[in-house]
Amino acid sequence: MQIDPALFEENERTAPLAECRQILATGPFQCETGAVLEQVDIAYETWGELSSTRDNAILVCHALTGDAHAIGWWERLIGPGKPIDTDQFFVIGVNVLGGCQGSTGPSSLASDGRRYNLRFPIITIGDMVEAQARLLDHLGIDRLYAAAGGSMGGMQVLEWTCRFPNRIQKAFITASCAAHSAMQIGFNETARQSIMQDPRWHGGDYEPDQGPVGGLSVARMLGHLSFLSDSAFTAKFGRRLQGKDQFSYGFETEFQVESYLRYQGDKFTKRFDANSLLYVTKAIDYYERASLAAAQAEFLFTSFTSDWLYPTYQSEAMHQMALEAGLQSQHHIIDLPYGHDAFLLDAVHQGRLVQDFLS
Amino acid sequence: MQIDPALFEENERTAPLAECRQILATGPFQCETGAVLEQVDIAYETWGELSSTRDNAILVCHALTGDAHAIGWWERLIGPGKPIDTDQFFVIGVNVLGGCQGSTGPSSLASDGRRYNLRFPIITIGDMVEAQARLLDHLGIDRLYAAAGGSMGGMQVLEWTCRFPNRIQKAFITASCAAHSAMQIGFNETARQSIMQDPRWHGGDYEPDQGPVGGLSVARMLGHLSFLSDSAFTAKFGRRLQGKDQFSYGFETEFQVESYLRYQGDKFTKRFDANSLLYVTKAIDYYERASLAAAQAEFLFTSFTSDWLYPTYQSEAMHQMALEAGLQSQHHIIDLPYGHDAFLLDAVHQGRLVQDFLS
Repeated sequence: MQIDPALFEENERTAPLAECRQILATGPFQCETGAVLEQVDIAYETWGELSSTRDNAILVCHALTGDAHAIGWWERLIGPGKPIDTDQFFVIGVNVLGGCQGSTGPSSLASDGRRYNLRFPIITIGDMVEAQARLLDHLGIDRLYAAAGGSMGGMQVLEWTCRFPNRIQKAFITASCAAHSAMQIGFNETARQSIMQDPRWHGGDYEPDQGPVGGLSVARMLGHLSFLSDSAFTAKFGRRLQGKDQFSYGFETEFQVESYLRYQGDKFTKRFDANSLLYVTKAIDYYERASLAAAQAEFLFTSFTSDWLYPTYQSEAMHQMALEAGLQSQHHIIDLPYGHDAFLLDAVHQGRLVQDFLS
Repeated sequence: MQIDPALFEENERTAPLAECRQILATGPFQCETGAVLEQVDIAYETWGELSSTRDNAILVCHALTGDAHAIGWWERLIGPGKPIDTDQFFVIGVNVLGGCQGSTGPSSLASDGRRYNLRFPIITIGDMVEAQARLLDHLGIDRLYAAAGGSMGGMQVLEWTCRFPNRIQKAFITASCAAHSAMQIGFNETARQSIMQDPRWHGGDYEPDQGPVGGLSVARMLGHLSFLSDSAFTAKFGRRLQGKDQFSYGFETEFQVESYLRYQGDKFTKRFDANSLLYVTKAIDYYERASLAAAQAEFLFTSFTSDWLYPTYQSEAMHQMALEAGLQSQHHIIDLPYGHDAFLLDAVHQGRLVQDFLS
């Protein structure tokens, strides 16, 4: 399999255009833990037209650090004439509860006018889904034609099928799982500790411009290590040096891969709140579904051979759970070298499967 | 393959007993970069008796954070009656140049009475090997019967065969490579940034008890993530909770794997110098051998199917380099689920191969 390095330039889109984003204020919200948020805002975007029978809505759920601008980070799958065709479907992107791109999260202001920070309650994947259901109520959509998501987005879709079996017809879940393994929890915990061990974290009470930028950037570097595969790193960087012909023998950047990771880490600190990363990773780690007995949807699972963060056996386990529940289900293992990022990059194989699944 | 969780308890031995350790003061040392250290100490230990013909010496080279006490961290392979048999061989363990367990490194005192810290020059795998050669001169050993090492220790052994082809007969190299890949460099760079982004690092000028403990502990957590395999993490921890029956829904430890990683990170800060980790990881990343044309040794390579940090293809590449140089060489891929740590844990398969190789 030849790797096209140019593909990797595209794997992280910029933040959503604020003018496209809408905010729904939904009032008080009781979390799965019992904690109550006095007011929850939900940031969302839509593309396409809702049909007169309101039966063509597709909800797109984002991964760890994504946002409501699904047509940006999943541009290969969503758009006019694309597998999730905005000429045909009414597509909804939503920022998760606990996030930091418009929806209520730890960086939001509480009723006392101060940021929640660590006063924010622990939220779950179920809470994210409940918030999305409120948005559908607001939009007048009783039942989704489909929900789609990868990684943490896939967990939300899986939870949709169990929590609201009557409100979702089809579920497309890629590069995801029904419960984090010990190693996946370990990666998340190391990212959390990177933030929490930074003295600038201050127990979560930092000013927005004085946060734990060092720890947050290292957490993101760790993320990028886990998003690609060994072969993808080799294809993209090898041992090539950054802007030099020979070693400088020092702690400045020598290799291109160092420059890439530092750049990704630094860039992330300008768009993401450290406390949000703590809350969202915890929601992922807590998530666990051992059965799809409650579900009624039809499933499409895809996974990627080179994805060592969300290995293919986890998608196979979800597929088997669907079959055991007597549901229609497909699982396709796609042989691509891009690692976990493949779910964002692959329009060809995954795209065809999604198009068929939605038709 | 059944996994014995008890094995994992053993994979990191305590620091060497100071009373066993000897220090050789070797005078000035010119590094590969041209920098000169005014005085280099080499910490070492020996076991067994040097034969009258001085032809039974085996040098054991340690990995990233190991030390001269090889009979501790490699107790499964070294000892009386063990594959590297101290009843038969004179076994030498050496702390690397740049380390912090007796040999000169960045935490050593320079001639001005202050710690080197970042005034220490960049050192290379070649420098580590040159320092070891001085020790052999001191011990009156012209030629090693063998050298043995895993991971970074394997790089030192490989370098021995090229730099001193007349001084080494056999080379046992396990779970190692001839040059770090982009992903391996990426893991090291993330560990380095974890230290350097900690405000307590202070450009490397910290007091020994006021160093970047947070960043150093996260760097070690990252290391442990890469030392085990997905299946090893699952076998050892699964999703089991730490000292509780149900979630606490907070940022304290929930899962056993979180407790394990935090413990390993914290413990590491009490035994290892943060600057040393920077220097030793740089030495690894710089290392590159594209040919064994200069070598004359006989090689034994082992690698492990579940080791994703040092994948088996890297050992195969070294084996092919040895064959291309017309040298005797074997490469055995061992199917064990322990990840990179397998090179420390496997006495059975690896042990038998080593015993045969040395006999």
